[in-house]
Amino acid sequence: MSSAIGIDLGGTKLLGILVDERGSPLARRERPTCACDGPDVLVGSIAALARELAEEARAAGRPPRGVGVGAPGPLDPRTGVVYAMPNLGEDYVRFPLRERLTRALPELPVAVENDANAAIQGEVWTGAAKGCEDAILLTLGTGVGGGIVAAGRMIRGARGAGAELGHVIVEPDGPPCGCGGRGCLEQYASGTAIARLAAEALARRREGALAQLAAPSAQDVVRAARAGDELALAVIDRGARALGTALASIVHVLNPELVLIGGGFGSAAWDLLEPSTAAEMKSRTFVASWEGLKLARAALGSDAGAIGAARSVI
Amino acid sequence: MSSAIGIDLGGTKLLGILVDERGSPLARRERPTCACDGPDVLVGSIAALARELAEEARAAGRPPRGVGVGAPGPLDPRTGVVYAMPNLGEDYVRFPLRERLTRALPELPVAVENDANAAIQGEVWTGAAKGCEDAILLTLGTGVGGGIVAAGRMIRGARGAGAELGHVIVEPDGPPCGCGGRGCLEQYASGTAIARLAAEALARRREGALAQLAAPSAQDVVRAARAGDELALAVIDRGARALGTALASIVHVLNPELVLIGGGFGSAAWDLLEPSTAAEMKSRTFVASWEGLKLARAALGSDAGAIGAARSVI
Repeated sequence: MSSAIGIDLGGTKLLGILVDERGSPLARRERPTCACDGPDVLVGSIAALARELAEEARAAGRPPRGVGVGAPGPLDPRTGVVYAMPNLGEDYVRFPLRERLTRALPELPVAVENDANAAIQGEVWTGAAKGCEDAILLTLGTGVGGGIVAAGRMIRGARGAGAELGHVIVEPDGPPCGCGGRGCLEQYASGTAIARLAAEALARRREGALAQLAAPSAQDVVRAARAGDELALAVIDRGARALGTALASIVHVLNPELVLIGGGFGSAAWDLLEPSTAAEMKSRTFVASWEGLKLARAALGSDAGAIGAARSVI
Repeated sequence: MSSAIGIDLGGTKLLGILVDERGSPLARRERPTCACDGPDVLVGSIAALARELAEEARAAGRPPRGVGVGAPGPLDPRTGVVYAMPNLGEDYVRFPLRERLTRALPELPVAVENDANAAIQGEVWTGAAKGCEDAILLTLGTGVGGGIVAAGRMIRGARGAGAELGHVIVEPDGPPCGCGGRGCLEQYASGTAIARLAAEALARRREGALAQLAAPSAQDVVRAARAGDELALAVIDRGARALGTALASIVHVLNPELVLIGGGFGSAAWDLLEPSTAAEMKSRTFVASWEGLKLARAALGSDAGAIGAARSVI
């Protein structure tokens, strides 16, 4: 009996999960992180967290096979080099994450994976996409991440920069985006975008529940929408339509059997987003791509990335 | 020593190619087809063409392993059922092409494949994408077709309806498209779309070389653009910008190492399209997805579909 350690590297915390060979969690631990700390502290924290979980594993008679880390940025899993992790600051451009971790943790094999890729790997292993050969995951959070399984394989692209589903273009002349382009999905359906769309709507017409707040967050918009606030519902609808438009393009490319929506905003708002998302998608796709397609909320929530990262070493 | 037969099923002709085990052509034959003839005549023609090539193969001491057929429509290669072939008429909705061909050709194993999927299979086998693990092909012709190889595999989607790259959305409120949506790439960068864009431009301002023609075709536009006609150059530029926008979305999804452009219009116009296509893509993608990406004309031209279809039975 063995085990594996998965660590999800977030903007404010590290989440570590120890799983058995089938992906069932045996233990979980968290540690705060801060972009202000810089790479040395971050690498040290990840190594310390991995070591704690490794000790727990050995104490339970299940020596760990290694540690998989899900990182918030495009990376090449073969070299373990992260292209960038903008949410953790400027210090991580072409950052050799696996090499640094291997030096800090010589006793354990280390794998690194993009966090959204790790998340869909987790969902396919033990979650809502269990056993699927053709599935995608969109995580709507601070940004919009993506993961793809097609023909039974993870699709990462030639240099690990694929599955960036947040950068599928919705409006060619829309707001500028961090990728260099304009009007990407991320500019309409991330939590950040929902807060921006709400601010823009309030600037035009200051009314309803959100007008009471100085700077409504995406979660404020979700709450107000649930209470029937019209402005909040219109903002959610704008995000959902953009999501449906981007998904129509993605579905024409990949024809998945399952589309999962996760991430902080996406998980919280999925029941509100679903009707307009589905209607927009359906109006823009062939019957053959729409038939048999399921849309669902991701099942593992914020554990998906750590669980999927653990799978990389099993 | 054996061989394989590939047949590309086009709107006006059947192209049959006999290849050796490495994909080198040994013989080729054509037969006219007409949408007016209906399914019985079409199936009979395909079978007759296959039989002629099979006899040639046997005479050369290379008995054929089977026949692969590339069909112009989305289909499920596992069942051999074509969802539709709009360019061949209304008779082919959920048409059991493989079953019908197997009955007509009981002596040979039959495989069917979407024509653009067959084409990229041909390019990966012996053409411009030889050995690539992550490549895409867009065929710009009457419509816009697509083929995808990712992580070394053909990506057809859960029901064979993937790789429909012509239906990636460029303008969400653009012209209506055959897929049910609006503003798909096919509405800007197919030969049909180029002819429509030219007619629209002439309706606004009747000037230049194209104004002499009653209804300029895409090939007329290409010719006029080569002669420096401004209206024709503007139409080509509109198509190229749309192609670059759609490719930016596709590259964010798949991060290929190679993008091939083929099809009648695409092959003829690629040198004219390339500068604006590349500029638009580059302005809309991460450095990590753009770096190391090659754009090129498909190498096998109109033979790619037949050669790739032959590979399906090797």
